[in-house]
Amino acid sequence: MKDITLKEIATKLGISITTVSKALKGYPDVSEKTRNSVLELAKSLHFTPNSFAVNLRTKESRTIGLVIPEVVHHFFSNVINGIIDEAEKNNYLVIIVQSGESLALEIKQIELLLNKRVDGIIISLSNESNDDEHLRQILAREIPLVMFDKISKLIKCSKVIINDQKAAFEATQHLIDNGCKKIVHIRGPVNPQNAIDRFLGYKKALEKNNIPYNSNLVYTCKNVTFDEGKEFAEKIIQDHPDVDGIFAVTDLVAVGVLDYFNKVNIKVPNQVKLIGFSNWFMSQVITPKLSTVDQPSYEMGVQSFHLLMEEMNARKESKPFTIKTIELATSIIERESSFVNQ
Amino acid sequence: MKDITLKEIATKLGISITTVSKALKGYPDVSEKTRNSVLELAKSLHFTPNSFAVNLRTKESRTIGLVIPEVVHHFFSNVINGIIDEAEKNNYLVIIVQSGESLALEIKQIELLLNKRVDGIIISLSNESNDDEHLRQILAREIPLVMFDKISKLIKCSKVIINDQKAAFEATQHLIDNGCKKIVHIRGPVNPQNAIDRFLGYKKALEKNNIPYNSNLVYTCKNVTFDEGKEFAEKIIQDHPDVDGIFAVTDLVAVGVLDYFNKVNIKVPNQVKLIGFSNWFMSQVITPKLSTVDQPSYEMGVQSFHLLMEEMNARKESKPFTIKTIELATSIIERESSFVNQ
Repeated sequence: MKDITLKEIATKLGISITTVSKALKGYPDVSEKTRNSVLELAKSLHFTPNSFAVNLRTKESRTIGLVIPEVVHHFFSNVINGIIDEAEKNNYLVIIVQSGESLALEIKQIELLLNKRVDGIIISLSNESNDDEHLRQILAREIPLVMFDKISKLIKCSKVIINDQKAAFEATQHLIDNGCKKIVHIRGPVNPQNAIDRFLGYKKALEKNNIPYNSNLVYTCKNVTFDEGKEFAEKIIQDHPDVDGIFAVTDLVAVGVLDYFNKVNIKVPNQVKLIGFSNWFMSQVITPKLSTVDQPSYEMGVQSFHLLMEEMNARKESKPFTIKTIELATSIIERESSFVNQ
Repeated sequence: MKDITLKEIATKLGISITTVSKALKGYPDVSEKTRNSVLELAKSLHFTPNSFAVNLRTKESRTIGLVIPEVVHHFFSNVINGIIDEAEKNNYLVIIVQSGESLALEIKQIELLLNKRVDGIIISLSNESNDDEHLRQILAREIPLVMFDKISKLIKCSKVIINDQKAAFEATQHLIDNGCKKIVHIRGPVNPQNAIDRFLGYKKALEKNNIPYNSNLVYTCKNVTFDEGKEFAEKIIQDHPDVDGIFAVTDLVAVGVLDYFNKVNIKVPNQVKLIGFSNWFMSQVITPKLSTVDQPSYEMGVQSFHLLMEEMNARKESKPFTIKTIELATSIIERESSFVNQ
């Protein structure tokens, strides 16, 4: 890259570097004529102030890091959208790294971001993350940190979450209200807090309705994929031919279940009622349309950025900052997969 | 952020800054004992080499910029995935900015990336982009540039594309081979080269099969959305009740068409055959499953990053670099929406 310096502009115009700098910043003690020639020449030379130099002075990079499990994912891509939109409005850039649900990669990516001197980090943990050392490193370096969706309860930082337990309770209750008595839960992996909470919500709803909890009715995803949904659907019907309701940890898995049921002609909702989680776009276009839990993903991104910015600003001004947890509301979206029109 | 310097480590250990620096870099002329104490202290202080200083010296930021219309988009999120994966393997970070299909925002975002001193830029143009000045700015500053998917023919840089005209020809031919005679094309907006090329491919296939081209059978998207697909479907059936085939510029629009047809009980494929473009995930889970053109989106990201890296490396070593255009193969995926099993 060609680096045009203030000095080159100054030399070409036969004026001092200070005058060039003042002209570019619009200081009033530079004549209009001089300012115009400086601006013109700067433009024709494609001059931009050296942002690394600026960084050294202000210690700000105006860049934040975002660590997510994967980009190709309805929920996460919507969160990214919210974060990038807000960052743009506030003149920040966003470096996005993927952990691919791997703890080792998550640790490496965070180190890269820290070396890059980002002003703050937003993260949703990988499914493997059960070790918090790399997160404590962020705090030890006094870098503002915000977690969303897949969080660690042990790390003291701002968080944007939904009440997964309550939302899962409502989803299960919705199946019970529509007559289900033998309800399978396809849960997320063992580590993530949100998978644990959704499982607990399912269990609580059964309890409250005096339906005995049966651990054989709980299937645990490894990768939370469409294919896992299909495989579990086949297994569920073999294990429990009389199942009448399924609550899946996310829509992608529920759509896999539906795909298998459609193939082998098991009627949804007549024989089995089905509800997902997260309201992926495709859930409204499949047949039958999938009932689900609406999770405000874009808003989650917006709020995560705001919390991060509050903390970044507080630190910049050496003001105290109290970490916060924002809980966003969810709601049940009733579609065709979970109730029979009488 | 707390900044730990080499000097602090040197002072604490009573050795020279040079020795600290050498110890951290693993130089053999530092005793193992000294190296160990330096590494230990550096670790306990959460020391990282100052990456901005490194940048000033090497003039490399090891960061690239990616400008795309939107993140929440099956095709683009897959390309992002390919780019981030490859960047990760090669020790680069990726700043992602969205143009939101707006030329003004695209211009602004590119300026931000240039000010950030990214080592290179990968871009897919917004639908509004018909002015190339901001792209010429990138070249004028000698920043490596790669375009993919939505490109400008006027800008001389490396490109990763598919043959949109050929792919659209094949999609239309597929409908004709399955008996369609009155084929509607729902095309993309006026500006993007790929929308133009897909339209031309449609037209060529009609010509080759002696089906007269009728401009009334072409509908032009503004925003290329699911809702536009639904609206066009309603209009198409009103305007041309005898339509027997539809080729949509992308799966999202085709799924909108299908959604409307399912609602009003117009049978796909029996009454109207339908083919999309891009092979979105949902196309394989809707009813009927959507035929489409497979576009290697992940591979497009990988190749874009490789081309960019080749150019960045060439410049770093002041070697000549010849821009290239890589054309990736597409294929027709036949599913239920476009042919009737005899």
